[in-house]
Amino acid sequence: MHAVATRNGQLRIVDIDQPEPVEGEALVKVLACGICGSDLHFVKFGEDIVRASMDSGNGRFAPDLSRDIIMGHEFCVEVVGYGPNTSGPVGIGDRVTSVPSRGAYSNTFPGGYSEYMVLDASMLLPVADSVPTEHAATTEPMAVGMHAVRAGQLSGGEPTVVYGCGPVGLATIASLRNEGAGTIIASDFSPRRRELAGIMGADVVVDPRETSPIAALERRGYQAGGEVVMFDAIGVQGTIALLMREAPSRGARLVIVGVCMQDDTIVPMSGIEKELQLKFVLGYTPDEYAETLDAITSGDINSDPIITGRVGLDGVADAFETLGDPEEHCKIMVTPHEDNSL
Amino acid sequence: MHAVATRNGQLRIVDIDQPEPVEGEALVKVLACGICGSDLHFVKFGEDIVRASMDSGNGRFAPDLSRDIIMGHEFCVEVVGYGPNTSGPVGIGDRVTSVPSRGAYSNTFPGGYSEYMVLDASMLLPVADSVPTEHAATTEPMAVGMHAVRAGQLSGGEPTVVYGCGPVGLATIASLRNEGAGTIIASDFSPRRRELAGIMGADVVVDPRETSPIAALERRGYQAGGEVVMFDAIGVQGTIALLMREAPSRGARLVIVGVCMQDDTIVPMSGIEKELQLKFVLGYTPDEYAETLDAITSGDINSDPIITGRVGLDGVADAFETLGDPEEHCKIMVTPHEDNSL
Repeated sequence: MHAVATRNGQLRIVDIDQPEPVEGEALVKVLACGICGSDLHFVKFGEDIVRASMDSGNGRFAPDLSRDIIMGHEFCVEVVGYGPNTSGPVGIGDRVTSVPSRGAYSNTFPGGYSEYMVLDASMLLPVADSVPTEHAATTEPMAVGMHAVRAGQLSGGEPTVVYGCGPVGLATIASLRNEGAGTIIASDFSPRRRELAGIMGADVVVDPRETSPIAALERRGYQAGGEVVMFDAIGVQGTIALLMREAPSRGARLVIVGVCMQDDTIVPMSGIEKELQLKFVLGYTPDEYAETLDAITSGDINSDPIITGRVGLDGVADAFETLGDPEEHCKIMVTPHEDNSL
Repeated sequence: MHAVATRNGQLRIVDIDQPEPVEGEALVKVLACGICGSDLHFVKFGEDIVRASMDSGNGRFAPDLSRDIIMGHEFCVEVVGYGPNTSGPVGIGDRVTSVPSRGAYSNTFPGGYSEYMVLDASMLLPVADSVPTEHAATTEPMAVGMHAVRAGQLSGGEPTVVYGCGPVGLATIASLRNEGAGTIIASDFSPRRRELAGIMGADVVVDPRETSPIAALERRGYQAGGEVVMFDAIGVQGTIALLMREAPSRGARLVIVGVCMQDDTIVPMSGIEKELQLKFVLGYTPDEYAETLDAITSGDINSDPIITGRVGLDGVADAFETLGDPEEHCKIMVTPHEDNSL
């Protein structure tokens, strides 16, 4: 079968054996798999990521970069078979989604930039007939937003600020709207991303070159010093320090959901003077994943606006380039069995 | 009256007018005032602190450094008078302590490195006859420890690690012991400080050049991945990154109580991979201050071991030097009306 592999920072199409499901696994056909910003980062900063992962004692992201890695962890798939003595929640030919139960960024298991993959059969979640395949494939990134919002521990009605309106920021906005946040301010340099932020539920969207998000919040009646929850969905050097500096109140909660891959500089005094709380978050729980699929199914979360294009396997490398420009695309779907091009 | 002023990074004795209490204020005679590490930092890094304070939009520590500042915010005092139409909780001649209600690091109000000062009469807390003056003067630093422990949100029995056994770390250890922490591991380079950490209640005290605090915790039966609360009571560049790297579990809570005055470098990936929570803390609430005095009065917190010397006003500058060596002293009391020398 064909797949797109990354090795030593390069993407290329490879022809590999179709995986065989062992007991407990399902063999699935990839219908659509979203390209995640983390995948772009991984190609660019693989060594930094692996080193940081090892240093943190966790080693969660530590594959061998000199061997093929088939990425892709945001998928909707069709079950085509089960391993020996194995059954699942759906029959052959039905659509499912799942957390990447065989790991993302693995040298061993192909991800969704591939025609077929294997998944843990017990973790498959059926996709309702009413849900478009590509919407189901956004369960993963939208769950990241839900997880970030849950980390913010909203009691309801708190004003919130989302820095950065890439897919993670947009997913955060969608979940904030769905979970009863008060005013939602969003901030991004890109006009197209600001437009999407408004569509996803932000009340006010600012260009930070013109208006600070906190000033925008104050214009909506926020009093400096009041409770606020801020989300860093930018994830580049300097953004944590930016949020710490701009935090307008003692005890403000800062959720760091953007993944900055390099060392970063902060000003601890900002944190200390305002007794800030920083919560770093990653991923989601299996329950949050399932809840997100439910929200997509019911229409409480509509991810359609973020899906801006689709490519076949031979378009993946170009799509990685194109995603560098926020005006062009937001979420591109890889369709390994369809001959799409941007 | 005499006082020790800091101006442009220098300490010197000045002769100034005794303050006059206005309505709502008490005039108090300083019996003992502890020298705080923040005061040492303020003399050395005043410009950094003021800049960081302004940048954070708070301006809590932003006096004019080119004018006299009489520091000293850890005091036990005797009431010698009240302003017009003002009464307080004690009569003339009685001992009290108080949060520094007229501000610390002020160009306007002298602190405790002075013969007399004024305080908000309504915030005075009587000191029981059984409590030595110098113990009452440690209410402030011990309250910092209580506040840090409260920020750690112990539900009881959690293992804890305290990095740094200066006065703040020792106060944290005392409050951890008092508030039902599980195993308490402490870490410091200084043999004398490690000895004090044991006296204040740490179960295991390590020299981090020989044993990592987390390894020591594991030797006490801790399983990597379990809940843990870590305290940064060092407060120099690199310690936040150190705690983030060493944090052994997903969701570990890191309380940053040491005050690093410069920019600092962190590795966000460590935080993200382990979903760490960082809580920056400063000071204490008035209630925590009063609770700390109660704990000192009842004997639940014994601050006596940390008090290692006393000086008159003319010894303050030397004491600031001496405190640079952790083997020599921990907490030195300034006794403006007594002719003490180290």
